[in-house]
Amino acid sequence: MTAVLLHFEDEQAPAERLAHALGLASRLVERHRFPDEELRLRLPVDASGALPETLVVYRSLARPNDKLIELMLVARQARLLGARRIMLVAPYLAYMRQDIAFHPGEVVSQKVLGGFLADLFDGVVTVDPHLHRISRLHEAIPLDTAISLSGAPVLAELIAQRRPGALLMGPDAESAQWIEAAAARAGFDYGVCTKERHGDTSVEIQLPPLSVVGRQVVLLDDVASSGRTLAVAARLLLQAGVQSVDVAVTHALFAGDALDVIKAAGVGEVWSTDCISHPSNAIAMAPYLAQAVAPWLTTR
Amino acid sequence: MTAVLLHFEDEQAPAERLAHALGLASRLVERHRFPDEELRLRLPVDASGALPETLVVYRSLARPNDKLIELMLVARQARLLGARRIMLVAPYLAYMRQDIAFHPGEVVSQKVLGGFLADLFDGVVTVDPHLHRISRLHEAIPLDTAISLSGAPVLAELIAQRRPGALLMGPDAESAQWIEAAAARAGFDYGVCTKERHGDTSVEIQLPPLSVVGRQVVLLDDVASSGRTLAVAARLLLQAGVQSVDVAVTHALFAGDALDVIKAAGVGEVWSTDCISHPSNAIAMAPYLAQAVAPWLTTR
Repeated sequence: MTAVLLHFEDEQAPAERLAHALGLASRLVERHRFPDEELRLRLPVDASGALPETLVVYRSLARPNDKLIELMLVARQARLLGARRIMLVAPYLAYMRQDIAFHPGEVVSQKVLGGFLADLFDGVVTVDPHLHRISRLHEAIPLDTAISLSGAPVLAELIAQRRPGALLMGPDAESAQWIEAAAARAGFDYGVCTKERHGDTSVEIQLPPLSVVGRQVVLLDDVASSGRTLAVAARLLLQAGVQSVDVAVTHALFAGDALDVIKAAGVGEVWSTDCISHPSNAIAMAPYLAQAVAPWLTTR
Repeated sequence: MTAVLLHFEDEQAPAERLAHALGLASRLVERHRFPDEELRLRLPVDASGALPETLVVYRSLARPNDKLIELMLVARQARLLGARRIMLVAPYLAYMRQDIAFHPGEVVSQKVLGGFLADLFDGVVTVDPHLHRISRLHEAIPLDTAISLSGAPVLAELIAQRRPGALLMGPDAESAQWIEAAAARAGFDYGVCTKERHGDTSVEIQLPPLSVVGRQVVLLDDVASSGRTLAVAARLLLQAGVQSVDVAVTHALFAGDALDVIKAAGVGEVWSTDCISHPSNAIAMAPYLAQAVAPWLTTR
């Protein structure tokens, strides 16, 4: 049997786009949640009860804990049923931000999660995993095949179509390199704000010393979570006299009321990749993910 | 530094009862949940940033997925911070019921979870883990120290005080051996119903051929989840002319509206052990858990 892609019901559309780009069949992992919140999972075995030797598992890891347990159950059982090589395509990867102990005793969850995924899978492909103090994904996930794609050029191409001549703006210094890459892609002007965070939902922001009056500004970031940073930046830009503020993000995490908060700040359009399924999705990552997965499928 | 017990905020009371019974200090694992549902955990290290060599982690695994990820983060980081021996005390253990593939391709979650816990811990102590087709916990969790206690004698002693002369009733044949052990403890009469389950919340039950008229009946089970089985049994017993029906369970899981369903069926009292924290808790398991943990603490 040839390789197949495994997907979950809530991500059927992006998974099937990737399967199509790879020329693979996409099969559903059946999932039942018992009243006590335990999961029952069923893998798509053939008539003899076996799985192909090579599997690509598509699972984006927003709101990750349930999904990480699912992945463990699926990957371990798949090995027992004949899978020899399993790649995880997790367009959004969780727990990558806690990469050092900020206080003594804190769990460095990036390291623990990286080890967990490396035990389960033979390769991992993701997009913009928000690495700060390490430069390469395989420092977090100790696998030869640990591939990190960037959403920046993809978003830049979308912005070039929708807002040609836009000024790209990054909400904090962490995003500087990433914004620069996006801007270079289509010759955009760009700037980066400075940010101080006070707790999970309170942030202070200063605009960069740039003339923004009358400009169409696109706030660009790898992930939008609480939405507070983007909302504060949008308000400052509108007060400073910009013509419009739109938002483009790789990962539309949008926890709780985040999207309302952003819209209430005067943001026009919100565009995202389909790394996390969301109504704002404007770009499919499948062609880019497929380029990363395809070489692994053909090597042994 | 001597051994310490680690607990989580939502289980402080039962954890401290166990720590007291063992003569250990109980220290809190600090837990913060970010808006994106990721967890930040902090271990109670000493001034030098280290942990004791021996840890007992108290974590009951009702609604397990978040807690399993927590346990992985805690145990892996604890090893990095100096812990050499870690015991998990999980009065309620999850995923033990799916012990075979009922359909081709189903994940045998008992086996996967057992391997996961055996990788993280050096010993596991639990109560009534609902094993069917295997007889010993270490067949599910491949560790030398994998100890399964029974709540049956503990519940039997409570019932002997509250309902002397009660007729103990098990809701299904699976519980027969367990009910027999409880009945033998205090010389109770007992019987066992037969049960057919149709989906998660629909069950059919038949009473055993026993005279129940005028008896005080206590329905006894290892776990109450949806509550449907207990409710159906209670209604049948009351229709058959019993004087009263009370419920005693080891694990007060009570998913969703389970407790309302049971009360609406005419059940009087509901008693449980504190394996899962719940308003119905009537017995502390700490003295019994301590007996199982203490020998492990003193061996090397």
